[in-house]
Amino acid sequence: MTAAPDPMSDAALRERAARVIPGGLWGHMRSQGLPAGYPQFFQRAEGCRLWDADGREFIDFMCSWGPIVLGHHDPEVEAAAEAQRRLGDAMNGPAPVLVELAEHFTALVAHADWTIFAKNGTDATTICVTTARAGTGRRKLLVAKGAYHGAAPWCSPSVVGVTAEDRAHLLHFRYNNIRSLEQAAAMCAGDLAGVLVSPFRHDYGVDQELPTPEFAQAVRALCDRAGAALILDEVRTGARIDLAGSWEDLGVRPDLAAWSKAIANGHALAAVTGSERWRDAAASIFVTGSFWCGAVAMAAALACLRKLQAVDGIAHMRAMGQRLRDGLARQAAAHGFRIRCSGPPQMPMLLFDDDADAALGSAFCSLALQRGVYLHPKHNMFLSVAHRAQDIDRTLDVTEGAFAELAAGRR
Amino acid sequence: MTAAPDPMSDAALRERAARVIPGGLWGHMRSQGLPAGYPQFFQRAEGCRLWDADGREFIDFMCSWGPIVLGHHDPEVEAAAEAQRRLGDAMNGPAPVLVELAEHFTALVAHADWTIFAKNGTDATTICVTTARAGTGRRKLLVAKGAYHGAAPWCSPSVVGVTAEDRAHLLHFRYNNIRSLEQAAAMCAGDLAGVLVSPFRHDYGVDQELPTPEFAQAVRALCDRAGAALILDEVRTGARIDLAGSWEDLGVRPDLAAWSKAIANGHALAAVTGSERWRDAAASIFVTGSFWCGAVAMAAALACLRKLQAVDGIAHMRAMGQRLRDGLARQAAAHGFRIRCSGPPQMPMLLFDDDADAALGSAFCSLALQRGVYLHPKHNMFLSVAHRAQDIDRTLDVTEGAFAELAAGRR
Repeated sequence: MTAAPDPMSDAALRERAARVIPGGLWGHMRSQGLPAGYPQFFQRAEGCRLWDADGREFIDFMCSWGPIVLGHHDPEVEAAAEAQRRLGDAMNGPAPVLVELAEHFTALVAHADWTIFAKNGTDATTICVTTARAGTGRRKLLVAKGAYHGAAPWCSPSVVGVTAEDRAHLLHFRYNNIRSLEQAAAMCAGDLAGVLVSPFRHDYGVDQELPTPEFAQAVRALCDRAGAALILDEVRTGARIDLAGSWEDLGVRPDLAAWSKAIANGHALAAVTGSERWRDAAASIFVTGSFWCGAVAMAAALACLRKLQAVDGIAHMRAMGQRLRDGLARQAAAHGFRIRCSGPPQMPMLLFDDDADAALGSAFCSLALQRGVYLHPKHNMFLSVAHRAQDIDRTLDVTEGAFAELAAGRR
Repeated sequence: MTAAPDPMSDAALRERAARVIPGGLWGHMRSQGLPAGYPQFFQRAEGCRLWDADGREFIDFMCSWGPIVLGHHDPEVEAAAEAQRRLGDAMNGPAPVLVELAEHFTALVAHADWTIFAKNGTDATTICVTTARAGTGRRKLLVAKGAYHGAAPWCSPSVVGVTAEDRAHLLHFRYNNIRSLEQAAAMCAGDLAGVLVSPFRHDYGVDQELPTPEFAQAVRALCDRAGAALILDEVRTGARIDLAGSWEDLGVRPDLAAWSKAIANGHALAAVTGSERWRDAAASIFVTGSFWCGAVAMAAALACLRKLQAVDGIAHMRAMGQRLRDGLARQAAAHGFRIRCSGPPQMPMLLFDDDADAALGSAFCSLALQRGVYLHPKHNMFLSVAHRAQDIDRTLDVTEGAFAELAAGRR
């Protein structure tokens, strides 16, 4: 007689989920895209560490796919959230913290004169596009080919269940390619409402690519010339690159920007910021959600943004990301692997040369996972303020072992 | 010398908000639609009571426009949320509570074989429509004229910033009008993907209208004949009419249903439920959000749904709503007003006869507000389990005074 299988094990939970959830899970957190051995379910989290349903502990480099920027259970964020929770969360209107957060955020973000809060990154990108259309009376939107801007029918990476009309006014350009941008704009005649662009190229499965200053300036010049909105999609980058806006170092400011993920350290919040020119347009559209005035997530965001400033969290994440990147580069070279670490150090993408279907990268990540480090073989990763030097060094001990075993398997 | 105005008063907060938020606030919670004297900002909430930024206390009949179904700070819900919060909320994947909630919800909802969770009601209605299109390979969607199904470009009550293509495949019928339904369906030829319909008519500013059994059956028969999806929009009604589904008493089951608002007692959560026929379609589409696997809202939902069952919360809300309605009817008649209370007692709409622009209704609500009761003159209201008989009776004391003053002003 064998013991009954644990109904709360990752394997059992997957079986149970497959019965009551189509495909076992929706969207980007579905583990089918990950190498074998990756868990689907997580029982707890603390700082930069996660424990899966089977109790395995990992140093985490996905940060919940971005939201966790200070680490899980950050004491300042959770104290602020709890204080607001004791007062009220969803009420018949906002709490005063809405005003405090909006004041703080518009002061922090260089281009911002106003803000609107929502729940999903997709809410924020959609509000930006609707505002651009309202403010111009035009329809066409330029987006980079392959860029992810959300999961609504107009922008989803999949066209299943989507109609042609949902994307009728989208035109594509190639990231960092000024000529393709201008060609796409030329096709809009007088109907260009906006250009929606990520601060850097962070497409799935390919090297990340920072914008050339010339490209960013060309987007700005094009929008100025056309009277169209430059919409920066900060959903993935916001609060990790530059609190004032990810293109500040390039001297290029957007008209509208979409934010979510990290701004409230894991609490569900999204935001749109805009400049004065677009205020009336933003006031003229109807957008809302049952929980968009929820006060707890706003209190969390205010504490999160303040702490990121107070501890210079971005410099810390950058330094920790660089420490990881340098270590990985040394180890890879020592073991005879050619790897590429692309993007800002605090949002690293790790790819192997000559690695069709990321087979080698997946094998490497599986070996790291077995040793207690959660990496992603095809998506950019994320550092948090909770990653300290000893966590990076412990990670590098693990990756040293993973490279060594990978090299041994090759011989 | 006068004292400096309190920067946290409702008036000061509105001024501050006007500077950093377009129009002072977005969406349905913007107080501009309410009579003069209504607050915009709320400092705290408890049970069925709210305190505005100026410290005024109200017995509340909006329940945060629906989400608060057990009352603010329900101890069971908050204990479950806190227990999950101590473990983890947004992680690299869901927590086990996702499976427990999905199992519970699909067992509870009569038509449901599976579920998907999201954050906004609009997410849920959009997922239903996308699933219907994926599962049929068709495009057309029938919706009732004037019905609210969310605030995305395809369904927003405003067309500012929206393109004609966003609504290219929508056709309209009149609620409870079988002939207009069939006429709209006939215009779709073989391209009908689904019919999206609310369990009852709850349009802004007009009497609520329950569906005739014949109408509900006709929607079902039409969808069966056409192979299209019957999509029930339970966002506003869910967890207040019938936990198994709001058309259970009519014997009519949907293929897909959209849920949000009350299912997690104020925590941000939405859900889609579907029957077996639509499972593969739901698995084939790509929908996601950064916080859709957030575990705290799921733990809250599980506790909320369990408590609603355990205490028969719906029967209680219905009884309290009836007590309110009966009292209002007696008082109105005694003071010579003709009023109409429409819809289910637990989601009452109160309108005055011969009341252009709801001037009389607004005056009545203002008088009630001054006396400590928060009503809405043009939108359906909501009861919660936290409304006890003494709260209703205290409310009726207030409305007696409001009717009396309204009558005095008339003479």
